[in-house]
Amino acid sequence: MGCRALLLLSFLSLGAATTIPPRIKILGSPHLSASPTPDPAVARKYSVLYFQQKVDHFGFADMRTFKQRYLVADKHWRRNGGSILFYTGNEGDIVWFCNNTGFMWDVAEELKAMLVFAEHRYYGESLPFGQDSFKDSQHLNFLTSEQALADFAELIRHLKKTIPGARGQPVIAIGGSYGGMLAAWFRMKYPHIVVGALAASAPIWQLDGMVPCGEFMKIVTKDFRKSGPYCSESIRKSWNVIDKLSGSGSGLQLLTNTLHLCSPLTSEKVPALKGWIAETWVNLAMVNYPYACNFLQPLPAWPIKEVCQYLKNPNVSDTVLLQNIFQALSVYYNYSGQAACLNISQTTTSSLGSIGWSFQACTEMVMPFCTNGIDDMFEPFLWDLEKYSNDCFNQWGVKPRPHWMTTMYGGKNISSHSNIIFSNGELDPWSGGGVTRDITDTLVAINIPDGAHHLDLRAHNAFDPSSVLLSRLLEVKHMKKWILDFYSNIK
Amino acid sequence: MGCRALLLLSFLSLGAATTIPPRIKILGSPHLSASPTPDPAVARKYSVLYFQQKVDHFGFADMRTFKQRYLVADKHWRRNGGSILFYTGNEGDIVWFCNNTGFMWDVAEELKAMLVFAEHRYYGESLPFGQDSFKDSQHLNFLTSEQALADFAELIRHLKKTIPGARGQPVIAIGGSYGGMLAAWFRMKYPHIVVGALAASAPIWQLDGMVPCGEFMKIVTKDFRKSGPYCSESIRKSWNVIDKLSGSGSGLQLLTNTLHLCSPLTSEKVPALKGWIAETWVNLAMVNYPYACNFLQPLPAWPIKEVCQYLKNPNVSDTVLLQNIFQALSVYYNYSGQAACLNISQTTTSSLGSIGWSFQACTEMVMPFCTNGIDDMFEPFLWDLEKYSNDCFNQWGVKPRPHWMTTMYGGKNISSHSNIIFSNGELDPWSGGGVTRDITDTLVAINIPDGAHHLDLRAHNAFDPSSVLLSRLLEVKHMKKWILDFYSNIK
Repeated sequence: MGCRALLLLSFLSLGAATTIPPRIKILGSPHLSASPTPDPAVARKYSVLYFQQKVDHFGFADMRTFKQRYLVADKHWRRNGGSILFYTGNEGDIVWFCNNTGFMWDVAEELKAMLVFAEHRYYGESLPFGQDSFKDSQHLNFLTSEQALADFAELIRHLKKTIPGARGQPVIAIGGSYGGMLAAWFRMKYPHIVVGALAASAPIWQLDGMVPCGEFMKIVTKDFRKSGPYCSESIRKSWNVIDKLSGSGSGLQLLTNTLHLCSPLTSEKVPALKGWIAETWVNLAMVNYPYACNFLQPLPAWPIKEVCQYLKNPNVSDTVLLQNIFQALSVYYNYSGQAACLNISQTTTSSLGSIGWSFQACTEMVMPFCTNGIDDMFEPFLWDLEKYSNDCFNQWGVKPRPHWMTTMYGGKNISSHSNIIFSNGELDPWSGGGVTRDITDTLVAINIPDGAHHLDLRAHNAFDPSSVLLSRLLEVKHMKKWILDFYSNIK
Repeated sequence: MGCRALLLLSFLSLGAATTIPPRIKILGSPHLSASPTPDPAVARKYSVLYFQQKVDHFGFADMRTFKQRYLVADKHWRRNGGSILFYTGNEGDIVWFCNNTGFMWDVAEELKAMLVFAEHRYYGESLPFGQDSFKDSQHLNFLTSEQALADFAELIRHLKKTIPGARGQPVIAIGGSYGGMLAAWFRMKYPHIVVGALAASAPIWQLDGMVPCGEFMKIVTKDFRKSGPYCSESIRKSWNVIDKLSGSGSGLQLLTNTLHLCSPLTSEKVPALKGWIAETWVNLAMVNYPYACNFLQPLPAWPIKEVCQYLKNPNVSDTVLLQNIFQALSVYYNYSGQAACLNISQTTTSSLGSIGWSFQACTEMVMPFCTNGIDDMFEPFLWDLEKYSNDCFNQWGVKPRPHWMTTMYGGKNISSHSNIIFSNGELDPWSGGGVTRDITDTLVAINIPDGAHHLDLRAHNAFDPSSVLLSRLLEVKHMKKWILDFYSNIK
């Protein structure tokens, strides 16, 4: 079973990449540019199609259009009593998402469902202005969640118009991570188009101060604390050790050697080093899956446990602690044993995905993060909106509107909506910004104690814990009810 | 009692004013430029305020702002257990609407309500680019219902932030005509901001072919048919008489004299003449109120009955029929006896309101109208979207997207929403595109048999028929329930 998931790695890309404090900045590594090879274990056949979208749904002066890519798989679709599962694409190549959302493929037959995967504008091949799409804020002006939702709405209208039998069928939105936020918002804003939404690991409350900014890193820390004795303590101690050593040339040399860095560490690069290490721990928390995965680098099952094997004792010499950190990092970067050295610039990819997300993080998707070094294992970092905003302006010439998403999508006041499943893995740091309690009978939370980032959307696996199996059963049960209700109402 | 209502006269302004067939074209006379003097019978005190809005809520590259005007009246408002009634301004000067929505003033005390009247962007004083606002499609690009709703949302956020006591109070959207459509859509799209909406005479289904295009003129005709024997037949016959006479110079002279036209009729102006007459009948159907009104020209109670006094016999000579038509028109244009002649260009106003609406009708608000001369008393006119679209392009450089409003707001598929009252007067031609049946327990229709265009929103009047009194009671009952539910839920 492949494990190329991690849909939301770009989520932490905080926009002003050059000026954001390293502790947070380096979390923003999407890796979505990784080649979207299909899961070899499952033969997934789909058609690649394109739909002409308006660049600007919300104005009439601009008549330009672009081609949105989408994928359709209809092997199990039935014109009679069937359904349409619509993946609300997020910040990356849609083929990659298609191949990492095995859940949809697994339930297609049972729901007689056509699968549709819609690419999000400004990602993958769906670039409104080709190579110029990221040129400046004028070209990026149409990269918003509202435009993306309107794309989805227009695409579904098109499908219903052009595919015989599709018109009379219920559509269900499914998405994970930012795509899960879009799925939930799509149901909220276009309930006439989708009968319900499965929003997996969707941190819709990570915005606008709705949850404490330290929540995310606390969960990361908890994952490490639970995975081995003194594991988080060892990591917490490491920052000071790095700082201490980086004060001298010999210390920098020691760091370079002990961590097997590909290029010699300089004092200017120390923040980047610490950021890169922090990002590694965060990434591990997101992909702490119960089975061996091949994500960029191959990873073992429950990778944090493996990492913590090397971090059992914080009370060792600086050099030994660093050696342990190196071993721990190697679980992530060198599990296959192929890497000769570790490259701290490895995660600062310049994929289109990361550029797009960086702009979104500087406009609508402002997610406050902070650490205090006490409740978490990281160096203290205060959230500073003003600085963040200025950094965004310097980078993109735009100012974020942190409250806008709350005005648009309701924040915590969403109880008048219906038919949304919010699923969250309790190991997933993003669950801190997710909906983890039922809001009403039809706005339900499904918590997966042993789940990392939207494990439920992944293909069935022999090593799946029972909690995720149960969650998927529940999700299908809800979806079947929505479908049944739909057909009952049109009779 | 003043009767300066008729909120929606600009509604029929079909965009391409210079090329639209006259039968329909001339319906588009808003008269909203009429000076917004307050109703003298009621002392209505309000503050005039301004709020800085973003020109473009849906993009970040454009950082321009403008001042939105709004009015606040808080005499009866109570911080303890009160409510906020929010008028979703439509296509005209907000002071005019404020002074013609007596219902809100009448119920303020009972609901302990603050009244807020928000002006719609591009109307009244709320011009994003001042005098340049209507210059071209680039400047008009931000005139959409979505931007207007976002203005309302941001304004309410501002009020709740800045007025002590407002934050914890329920807001109810109220609007009439296009403003009623906005009120309904506001509840649908921002249910976290308004607990419910009263959408009076809101033809949300007049769009995108959801109702037959002939419905509107059929209702106009029915009003005349019911108001006197042979009344609609006389009008139906008049078009041929005009056509016949306009074939010769002497006929044109006869028309000029008999109809007391201010300037001599030429054959090119005949379509304009017929259009102007048709518009008069339409306007009368909208303001067929049960009490004497002073709308632009003074009008008697039940004006169509007065008109039909003169149109009892279609089987008269052409000259006599024309004389009768003149008498009938004079009810509308010369009830006070002041007018020396009738001016057929009188209704083609160039008020800002009409320009703005003309653009909206050429973009989002495409309302198909047609007549067949059999089910209605007008000359046959086919709806031709292609021609309409081309006319719009010639006039504004934009193409309408007739289906967009359905995609955005759901068309007839709105049952998942809640807490909207759709009220319609059965005499009102706009009721043909309105919601006149309950959709669910909380999406309710209130039909007013003796009501013309949103009579229920007008101030209480001694001559109000019992049906409108009952309707208002029902409306208040619903609003009280929404308020009660709101306070119950936050306890």
